[in-house]
Amino acid sequence: MADYKFEGWIALDKETGVGGMKWQQYEPKQFEDTDVDIKISHCGVCGTDVHSLRSALFPTDYPCCAGHEIVGTIIKVGPKVAGGLQVGSLAGVGPQIGSCSDCEACISGNQNHCMKMVQTYNSRYPDGVKTMGGYAKYWRGPSDWVFLIPGGMSASEAAPMLCGGITLYSPLKRFGAGPGKSVGIIGIGGLGHFGILFAKALGADKVVAVSRNSKKKSDAFKLGATDFIATDEEEGWSMKHFGSCDLIISTVSTSQVPLGDYLNLLKTNGNFVQLGAPALPEVQVAILIFRGLSLSGSLIGSPTEIREMLDFAVKKNVHPLIEEKPMHDANNVITDMDKGLARYRYVLVN
Amino acid sequence: MADYKFEGWIALDKETGVGGMKWQQYEPKQFEDTDVDIKISHCGVCGTDVHSLRSALFPTDYPCCAGHEIVGTIIKVGPKVAGGLQVGSLAGVGPQIGSCSDCEACISGNQNHCMKMVQTYNSRYPDGVKTMGGYAKYWRGPSDWVFLIPGGMSASEAAPMLCGGITLYSPLKRFGAGPGKSVGIIGIGGLGHFGILFAKALGADKVVAVSRNSKKKSDAFKLGATDFIATDEEEGWSMKHFGSCDLIISTVSTSQVPLGDYLNLLKTNGNFVQLGAPALPEVQVAILIFRGLSLSGSLIGSPTEIREMLDFAVKKNVHPLIEEKPMHDANNVITDMDKGLARYRYVLVN
Repeated sequence: MADYKFEGWIALDKETGVGGMKWQQYEPKQFEDTDVDIKISHCGVCGTDVHSLRSALFPTDYPCCAGHEIVGTIIKVGPKVAGGLQVGSLAGVGPQIGSCSDCEACISGNQNHCMKMVQTYNSRYPDGVKTMGGYAKYWRGPSDWVFLIPGGMSASEAAPMLCGGITLYSPLKRFGAGPGKSVGIIGIGGLGHFGILFAKALGADKVVAVSRNSKKKSDAFKLGATDFIATDEEEGWSMKHFGSCDLIISTVSTSQVPLGDYLNLLKTNGNFVQLGAPALPEVQVAILIFRGLSLSGSLIGSPTEIREMLDFAVKKNVHPLIEEKPMHDANNVITDMDKGLARYRYVLVN
Repeated sequence: MADYKFEGWIALDKETGVGGMKWQQYEPKQFEDTDVDIKISHCGVCGTDVHSLRSALFPTDYPCCAGHEIVGTIIKVGPKVAGGLQVGSLAGVGPQIGSCSDCEACISGNQNHCMKMVQTYNSRYPDGVKTMGGYAKYWRGPSDWVFLIPGGMSASEAAPMLCGGITLYSPLKRFGAGPGKSVGIIGIGGLGHFGILFAKALGADKVVAVSRNSKKKSDAFKLGATDFIATDEEEGWSMKHFGSCDLIISTVSTSQVPLGDYLNLLKTNGNFVQLGAPALPEVQVAILIFRGLSLSGSLIGSPTEIREMLDFAVKKNVHPLIEEKPMHDANNVITDMDKGLARYRYVLVN
């Protein structure tokens, strides 16, 4: 038995999930030979946390402890743990902590697309035990999904990399963001700011930040943007910037987007990658045909990509813009996150 | 003045366009220094011809001479014609005979996506003169869009390459059909049969032909398919073949397609390329996200790709399945094409 108590911020229902979490003890999963326990020092606050806490997209399996950008020190290691994880290691956990291992996605190294994905919270292990996230003192789970934080990266900067970071790094890498390319990032929030950072770090010639207004313009340039489009302020922005991007990543998670106008920003044969939306307005396939465009989806990243990203971020000096907040203030932090006040990622600190 | 008369099959209105074309003389464009005249020996019959003749998708600019898979002998060459085109050369013309030369698409070598594309018929040159197609004795037009037919390729086999062939070759090449890849081709018609031929010639490990029933199964295997799915005959085909293709090219030009079932056939991060449809059922972007899929459009191919395809087809012994028909019988041929009787491409012969 552990000589420490698993306790954290527990959402009890959808009405009180955002802003009314209760600090409670909970029973962790049984410790297995391949598990580790982590003493959490930092946990990033993701937009998905807000949605999950209030059952915005799907009914949440309450009680729920949110948080899937977890960093801390390993304090217990099962006898079958591999990968260099040791007591005392600084390590992190992202949004996924399990996959089936034998489907096409898993076998091809794309475990983030496994249909039997186990998520870090609001999910269940194959045996039915609930998963509990990182708004807490401790985390316990399978070591295959625990990543060593490389030297040179702080725990607080590592935390939001594990979901926000990888969600942008993976498609930017997969779709060839780099020298000679012009990359558009739609939405300058927690995700979008990572898009600008990584597109720049990957060597893209142009990084075009797209936002509704110019409030975040100076931030965007500081992060590495070379161009800025404020769609509510620039008349005719879509045709004015027609054909200027090889790749666009949209981090906007509403279906109320001017998709046709966004597609105009692409060069011939360009690719529009959608990350967050449950639905888009009806796609005019004729536009894809006439201009040779692609519309793609992307979802977090694989363990291999996460490790690659962490090393890349250290090598290229990628530093997310974060605001540290005390863990005990999580309810207020979630409420501010819900209001869109994060610049650009809150990180809860124990 | 030419000592030959430009005459061909002219559609006069949408009611009589399919099956009621009239053999008539017409005034060609004025001969310019960069033009050539071709004595047409062969012209392929494309599905677009049928649509255009009856104004199925857009109102056609009658009178209209259809046909954009034109092959014949060059009989006149303007003084500013380059590219090795000479009197006596066997040469061909596809669906496009002009582009603006200064937009992003043109500059990047993707003239097939120029928004000011001049089409081979039912279109107008920048000066307003109508373009007239290949259901005719002669063709006159800009030599930049005239392609030498390489030695080793017959005129009748070259003809359907110029639209049907390039429409499949371009996306297969662009999206990496080749060794180690599994390629699905949906719809086994004039386009689809080229898809099977080129996917095989490019070295794809698996070529999966998808049709509603098994009428074309033996043809598909003869063309090079390694697998066949008859969607109306195989219960649960979509999940049975889940995750089996890296790339799918859909040649089906109706919106009544089971898009979700087709997407299931893709591997993680796979690509679904749509060629022909004016619209698809609403795309479930969530599926693209959860499985990392892409939905792309493609439209014919660039001049560079057309030349590459012609050489590749000779080198790899790619032979389309064609049925030669006399030019004088064009009305019956169009009627049969409309009925879906072509196996797999009609070629009109003067």
